Amino acid sequence: MSFNSFGRLLRFSTWGESHGPAIGAIVDGCPPGLNLSEADIQPWLDKRRPGTSRFTTQRREPDLVRIMSGLFEGRTTGAPISLMIENVDQRSKDYSNIAGAYRPGHADYTYDAKYGLRDWRGGGRSSARETASRVAAGAVARLLIPEVRIRAFLVELGGDAIDRAAFDDEAIDANPFFCPDPAAAARWEALVDGARNDGSSLGAIVECVATNVPAGWGAPVYAKLDAELATAMMSINAVKGVEIGEGFGAARLRGEVNADEMRRGEDGRPRFLSNHAGGVLGGISTGQDVVVRMAFKPTSSVRIPMRTVDAGGEETEISTKGRHDPCVGIRGAPVAEAMMALVLADQKLLHRAQRGEDR
Amino acid sequence: MSFNSFGRLLRFSTWGESHGPAIGAIVDGCPPGLNLSEADIQPWLDKRRPGTSRFTTQRREPDLVRIMSGLFEGRTTGAPISLMIENVDQRSKDYSNIAGAYRPGHADYTYDAKYGLRDWRGGGRSSARETASRVAAGAVARLLIPEVRIRAFLVELGGDAIDRAAFDDEAIDANPFFCPDPAAAARWEALVDGARNDGSSLGAIVECVATNVPAGWGAPVYAKLDAELATAMMSINAVKGVEIGEGFGAARLRGEVNADEMRRGEDGRPRFLSNHAGGVLGGISTGQDVVVRMAFKPTSSVRIPMRTVDAGGEETEISTKGRHDPCVGIRGAPVAEAMMALVLADQKLLHRAQRGEDR
Amino acid sequence: MSFNSFGRLLRFSTWGESHGPAIGAIVDGCPPGLNLSEADIQPWLDKRRPGTSRFTTQRREPDLVRIMSGLFEGRTTGAPISLMIENVDQRSKDYSNIAGAYRPGHADYTYDAKYGLRDWRGGGRSSARETASRVAAGAVARLLIPEVRIRAFLVELGGDAIDRAAFDDEAIDANPFFCPDPAAAARWEALVDGARNDGSSLGAIVECVATNVPAGWGAPVYAKLDAELATAMMSINAVKGVEIGEGFGAARLRGEVNADEMRRGEDGRPRFLSNHAGGVLGGISTGQDVVVRMAFKPTSSVRIPMRTVDAGGEETEISTKGRHDPCVGIRGAPVAEAMMALVLADQKLLHRAQRGEDR
Amino acid sequence: MSFNSFGRLLRFSTWGESHGPAIGAIVDGCPPGLNLSEADIQPWLDKRRPGTSRFTTQRREPDLVRIMSGLFEGRTTGAPISLMIENVDQRSKDYSNIAGAYRPGHADYTYDAKYGLRDWRGGGRSSARETASRVAAGAVARLLIPEVRIRAFLVELGGDAIDRAAFDDEAIDANPFFCPDPAAAARWEALVDGARNDGSSLGAIVECVATNVPAGWGAPVYAKLDAELATAMMSINAVKGVEIGEGFGAARLRGEVNADEMRRGEDGRPRFLSNHAGGVLGGISTGQDVVVRMAFKPTSSVRIPMRTVDAGGEETEISTKGRHDPCVGIRGAPVAEAMMALVLADQKLLHRAQRGEDR
Repeated sequence: MSFNSFGRLLRFSTWGESHGPAIGAIVDGCPPGLNLSEADIQPWLDKRRPGTSRFTTQRREPDLVRIMSGLFEGRTTGAPISLMIENVDQRSKDYSNIAGAYRPGHADYTYDAKYGLRDWRGGGRSSARETASRVAAGAVARLLIPEVRIRAFLVELGGDAIDRAAFDDEAIDANPFFCPDPAAAARWEALVDGARNDGSSLGAIVECVATNVPAGWGAPVYAKLDAELATAMMSINAVKGVEIGEGFGAARLRGEVNADEMRRGEDGRPRFLSNHAGGVLGGISTGQDVVVRMAFKPTSSVRIPMRTVDAGGEETEISTKGRHDPCVGIRGAPVAEAMMALVLADQKLLHRAQRGEDR
Repeated sequence: MSFNSFGRLLRFSTWGESHGPAIGAIVDGCPPGLNLSEADIQPWLDKRRPGTSRFTTQRREPDLVRIMSGLFEGRTTGAPISLMIENVDQRSKDYSNIAGAYRPGHADYTYDAKYGLRDWRGGGRSSARETASRVAAGAVARLLIPEVRIRAFLVELGGDAIDRAAFDDEAIDANPFFCPDPAAAARWEALVDGARNDGSSLGAIVECVATNVPAGWGAPVYAKLDAELATAMMSINAVKGVEIGEGFGAARLRGEVNADEMRRGEDGRPRFLSNHAGGVLGGISTGQDVVVRMAFKPTSSVRIPMRTVDAGGEETEISTKGRHDPCVGIRGAPVAEAMMALVLADQKLLHRAQRGEDR
Repeated sequence: MSFNSFGRLLRFSTWGESHGPAIGAIVDGCPPGLNLSEADIQPWLDKRRPGTSRFTTQRREPDLVRIMSGLFEGRTTGAPISLMIENVDQRSKDYSNIAGAYRPGHADYTYDAKYGLRDWRGGGRSSARETASRVAAGAVARLLIPEVRIRAFLVELGGDAIDRAAFDDEAIDANPFFCPDPAAAARWEALVDGARNDGSSLGAIVECVATNVPAGWGAPVYAKLDAELATAMMSINAVKGVEIGEGFGAARLRGEVNADEMRRGEDGRPRFLSNHAGGVLGGISTGQDVVVRMAFKPTSSVRIPMRTVDAGGEETEISTKGRHDPCVGIRGAPVAEAMMALVLADQKLLHRAQRGEDR
Repeated sequence: MSFNSFGRLLRFSTWGESHGPAIGAIVDGCPPGLNLSEADIQPWLDKRRPGTSRFTTQRREPDLVRIMSGLFEGRTTGAPISLMIENVDQRSKDYSNIAGAYRPGHADYTYDAKYGLRDWRGGGRSSARETASRVAAGAVARLLIPEVRIRAFLVELGGDAIDRAAFDDEAIDANPFFCPDPAAAARWEALVDGARNDGSSLGAIVECVATNVPAGWGAPVYAKLDAELATAMMSINAVKGVEIGEGFGAARLRGEVNADEMRRGEDGRPRFLSNHAGGVLGGISTGQDVVVRMAFKPTSSVRIPMRTVDAGGEETEISTKGRHDPCVGIRGAPVAEAMMALVLADQKLLHRAQRGEDR
């Protein structure tokens, strides 16, 4: 029910502002007996960490996670796991010019409209820094579903799409864009450099695929696996669209093309001949890859002057001078993976609650 | 938490199968003192009702709603409102051929995988008939937000998009497609007739717009207004994608184009010069139109024979002979409106809980 | 989150007023594959049914339950189970005199204070009739925990306590008071007759015991098994106190007396030498009997004239003329059993979600 | 839904073990604009702090709270408020003898039964130290209900009750027992000294009263104000019983005595002539004092040797040598106040959500 929590049985809550002393997450409902240390979490945070290439914000945050509770002798106890990440490089002065004026495309005005006040330092709670807490929580969730492999990558940046025929899984970690197509990655370097030099920014489309999800996770109606993924992904900063499998493209197919036919698999279970459904039928996993795509808008923090008003209603111009990602979609990929892990781990627990078998 | 409930403060739960005696919804958390009778609900059900044109299923359901609780002398009391709709025209025999085989694109296999058994009569719980309960609940939700106007319409059918320049609000109710472009509506008649004659089906894109939503509804992080809308819409049968405002298109814009600039409005509050954001920034409403679009896949119930397997794993073919919508997206429009109403009414209550003013 | 729902994974919601057309419950989250028919529910309703002896209200309600959804070929499908009980013998005229005045000890004034209006027919939503829905839902819950035996009985009525040494399990169903002490039952006949003749009413203390609950159900901190039982039982109409095991008596024992010592049991697991704890330590079941006691206040519906005010604030007198139970605690026993079953079944699902074994 | 969270709209989650680096709470859903600093929280923690007299544990914890998020320029922003308290004086060695054996009356065995492992250092999550987080969260809740006065005190210790006629509100803070009867406080010194010298412990009964709660807070059925208080109080360590108003005593009164009569008050609203109901009717506040009493069992940590078994099932004896409260009920009083504040603040938000007025 709370505004800063996500999940049903495996449930995490995040806290902290971009420019406070720290941010963090509590992961509740974790099964006991799992081996866990900071070393299981840190690598995922490092993937999301700012400042790792010239294509992300130059804010320097080590993003070192500390486990504050829920462990005993290196294993989870079933108690809440409190994760904390200190903020190190918060330069509040960078934001002084936005204290008075509403940045277009940002939550400045809406926070004021909702709360009557706002923490303007770095966007406060609306900063993408909150997503570090998700990545940390997601690392815990991964321990619950070791059978599942989760992989997020960019399939489009600034309107330039990858060539699916050139898809190379190993390329994803070999360039600063989580791009599975080396040629596209090379083109994107110039694209992003150009946008940054212009004081502009670019959008992106991220695809997140979970492999080895067993058939049967999810639920009909309001707890559909795809509906859970939709809210999970749409809750990520800058995401404006979510689609499953064929997604919007399915609206342009005919029924007999879109429906995935089945043959008998070698293990006796159905083998699908295609995966337009993206691994979900009727809200429940089919056993195929679960495929989600999401659209990241271009950062609204641009150096190009924009027309706006201030809190008093006076018209003004603003250009954002803080250190920002020219394309937030890049660092969105690790966040998407974390949200996928959190949703799937939660669904696994829900499923075995209702069915009773350990599956 | 439950699988068949939706909402936080205004919360509804639905029950019932396509081929049981009835379906229904309970609406909980409704403020007291609202005038309510069946006449406030029935017109919305009539819009979703099957069999109103040759472009929807020929199942004949009067869909008459009965209010079973929560009223006293014509007004809501704050108690749960139980709504019931009897099933009249359930022809179970139509489905006898699907008892054994898994229909491609349907939830048959996944229900078996999850539950170990399934109610194959008309899809049971996965039938689009469940959405009648949503429409009934949505009619109650509308009473909480009389200031808001909600309108859903098809912007694309079978890959054929409307001409935005020809948008005519009054046309929406003047054709069987909820289509705001009369010329497109005329073309769609032929499209749908053709698909039905082929034993095929078509997808559609529905747009749902809420006007007069005040700035300040929603919440940051995991209860974002857009994240709530995403799960609400993705939970509708056959929806495979959801986008807000510019949606996936935003990923192809530059930051300075996508961010909506502001000038001083006549009322002293910010006036936006565009609405790429679709009325939501940082998860909170801006006061502009809230714009959601969703992709409906083509019905997987097609007469064209499809390859599949049965519960025993044997390979077979199946062609669906029941009475089905050639384009479920059409009747999805009233459902989208209902879900929009339910989300917004819930957010209104949440907002005034946290802020205390009646707004 | 909703006001009329209870439970976490096995979750039920009730609706309906005493004088509406029907009342009902939806049970959500039930595992699939359980054999269920009306015959599994009706006997429990019959135990709570009014009019079975001269010691309960003379309202004649057959309380026939109808299962409206969630079944296929006699088994649960995992879909919500909708249960409906028609109201037959609602005499609204009996309540006309209370439309204007607030009955002391009833919710009349508080409903007006909260909602600004109230359904005064038979107490509307605050009628004990709502508990029939709980009993029906509880019958479903029992199917999930066939290993557990649940038994509720009166240990005190009108201040007259049973003799624990005379406890006879078979006596409980052999008298109209669910009294395990035949001598006390005989005395209570005169007590209740006397109170009814005086136009007065009596309170009672009900004990509910669950046997064969395995060690390990429940959770620390805010989902303690005893805390769940406390809210479950306190939510029953007229209950004013709840205690676990030794309860308030524990506050008068010394630590070394109250703490239950352990020896090695024949099965190798701990055997407790006493059960002051009532089967719960640290919020988790010990494997011993789970023992809850609750205090029912005397019905506030008395024929003796009471001083009160009306909605306009004018002073008046009122004597309740409707058909009422002289001791609501009697019919509280089957309700307590139902709530115990609902809590335990829910905890079983939660436990296997977190632990993964089917236990 | 989570196991370590409490509340509906104002919701807090706690984390941390007795012997970890820190404990803490997140308060979510707090309205914006409230003045808050550590100085608003610390005094309440100081009341619960161990080591303030010889009648509580000699563990020395400064219990200094630090606000980690949710504030801007001294005011709440509507974002989650993260509160952290470092553990300073954790002597793990004190507990080494209990690593192997199950302490009678403690959660040692049940934690092992549930989780398969346990953090035996100081009871881990089941330590009363968790209640410091509640007190900190409760201090925030108090800011939401400045109109309400909350007061908890001991009415019985070791079976020795106060004289209600000698009730002196000012005495409560003038002795180490939160005892409103100075003569009883004097007697209790000897009682507690005697128990401690014997290596034993004592129980207590705490009463918590909230004054100035407006009529109309709460909800019927499963979110009754008294049901919420019951789960809140029963979730406190060592509490074994909860009663509202007359409580168990109500079961011994006749209906016409127990029902609180009404006359017209000077403000035109009903004035009750008694308060057997404890300020709650039908789950909704009456405007009278809300009165809750709870029974604390005697600490199970006693120096007197107790028979028990170890994790391997071998029989042994144990005497607890750690620093413990001879009567945990004493420090339970500030915790009860905190839980009362948290429940009432939550209900205030829920009420204005449903009614819309700021009341």
